[in-house]
Amino acid sequence: MKIAIVGSGALGLYYGALLQQGGSDVHFLLRRDYQAIKNNGLKIYSINGDFKLPNVQGYNNSEDIGKVDLILVALKTFSNHSLKELITPLLSDKTEILTLQNGLGNEEMLADLFGEERIIGGIAFLCSNRGAPGEVHHLGAGRITIGEYKPSQSKRLEIISSIFNSCKIDCHTTNDLKKIRWEKLVWNIPFNGLSALLMQSVDSLLSLHHTRSLIRKIMLEVIKAANAQQLTENIKDVYAEKMLLFTDNMGVYKPSMQIDREEGRQIETEAIFRKPLEFAETTGIEMPLVEMLTTLLEQTELGRLK
Amino acid sequence: MKIAIVGSGALGLYYGALLQQGGSDVHFLLRRDYQAIKNNGLKIYSINGDFKLPNVQGYNNSEDIGKVDLILVALKTFSNHSLKELITPLLSDKTEILTLQNGLGNEEMLADLFGEERIIGGIAFLCSNRGAPGEVHHLGAGRITIGEYKPSQSKRLEIISSIFNSCKIDCHTTNDLKKIRWEKLVWNIPFNGLSALLMQSVDSLLSLHHTRSLIRKIMLEVIKAANAQQLTENIKDVYAEKMLLFTDNMGVYKPSMQIDREEGRQIETEAIFRKPLEFAETTGIEMPLVEMLTTLLEQTELGRLK
Repeated sequence: MKIAIVGSGALGLYYGALLQQGGSDVHFLLRRDYQAIKNNGLKIYSINGDFKLPNVQGYNNSEDIGKVDLILVALKTFSNHSLKELITPLLSDKTEILTLQNGLGNEEMLADLFGEERIIGGIAFLCSNRGAPGEVHHLGAGRITIGEYKPSQSKRLEIISSIFNSCKIDCHTTNDLKKIRWEKLVWNIPFNGLSALLMQSVDSLLSLHHTRSLIRKIMLEVIKAANAQQLTENIKDVYAEKMLLFTDNMGVYKPSMQIDREEGRQIETEAIFRKPLEFAETTGIEMPLVEMLTTLLEQTELGRLK
Repeated sequence: MKIAIVGSGALGLYYGALLQQGGSDVHFLLRRDYQAIKNNGLKIYSINGDFKLPNVQGYNNSEDIGKVDLILVALKTFSNHSLKELITPLLSDKTEILTLQNGLGNEEMLADLFGEERIIGGIAFLCSNRGAPGEVHHLGAGRITIGEYKPSQSKRLEIISSIFNSCKIDCHTTNDLKKIRWEKLVWNIPFNGLSALLMQSVDSLLSLHHTRSLIRKIMLEVIKAANAQQLTENIKDVYAEKMLLFTDNMGVYKPSMQIDREEGRQIETEAIFRKPLEFAETTGIEMPLVEMLTTLLEQTELGRLK
């Protein structure tokens, strides 16, 4: 299976490296790390053991990769406007597109561009950061859950999952992609949002009674909106309490969006915040606290650009 | 009339200086500026004309001031726990207490400590900053509106107002102190709150459609809560629109709370945010967006202290 990695940040490089190490034919579309990887290969520093790939098929344009069987999309969502240009040269009639991007709206956009039958979505729970060019630090987790964007009789989820598993990627399948996307938002919206807004780690946010209560209210808004999206089964309100306790156990953890802001990078307000508000609105559900958080983050981004 | 200024920040020093210059017998309780003012007097740099008071009656404790006719309270509200100690030595049976502090709850606290019949409240619209010790910069405005905390037949409002006016302080009286306190909150809560939270000036906040809409929603929450407080007449919703347009005309204006945060000072979350929430709650009114903003500011303060 010929695989292209589109969006070679920490996540794309990490999974791509595991796939290559496991024997897949992986082609990386590179930008920042192109020269470093061409010269010195790709190094993964992982809690599961470090490894190095001296020879990596790296490219600085999609035309040179040519047609592939599977495209793994790991681009930051604020660069989605580039996807048409980046993906088109990689497509044959049978090419499948798996997006591991954050938030909502990515499958929809890819489906509009390339046809819904190709589209698979996935949620990655991965703690990783880019280091120097050509280096990735894998700090924890790594599980992927993949699901069809539209109902399908195909066995491709099982095939992809089994390839991933054979390459030491913990990959599962779901028949309700929407549900797991929204479940992830129940955590991402309050914790990525508030940590980026206030530049405080999750333990600090949870230490004040009023903030803990605000986080719970935000989670319940997201759960209510999720349950209006025709999921196979509802997310229960108790899921919020479960996520609070789960986060208590993380200790001094900085969500990725806080790190992005610390390092002066753009944050994914559209996919993780504004899109869920739009999806909720189509079913008549309002999320006033999420709306306020979204607005504050957008205003913060305006401040960054000044 | 022997007047004591308790809380000699920019506001206390500015009005105290005008009163002294106009011929009143003013006694300043000083802390940071004590030595500078003892040595070199008090300098006011004002848009209405600079002036200097070479000889100022400055003290570092209230006992040395002794009993006075009027106490002007201009302490930051987060130091209210000191008021009992600072004010008690200044009191005779007839001493009146005028608080020009921000937010809600100050008259109540002073009434509990010293008896409600003494208490007068006032709202100051003043743009001023402390400069070097012994120096105050008056940047704009200066109007004061004073009102009785509890209904009174006394003519003291008119007397104080006329003394203030004779000292070139633009002072007015109101028969509804509560209403003007809440009206000021309609502006202070969104603009002081959001500017301090996001560290952006009012023009920047008003430049994004979503943020402007958020500010309007916050104002409408405050107006709704205000109108449940048995005012002499309701604040109309159109007051929000008026305040938005008024603020559009301010240009690149940094509210004082943003400056306080920039300079690492504590901000008045209790009096300007948490107290109004409590006052609203006693009448069964919720302000979910104000509650969220309050919580975010309290969490921000926690970050400052770390």
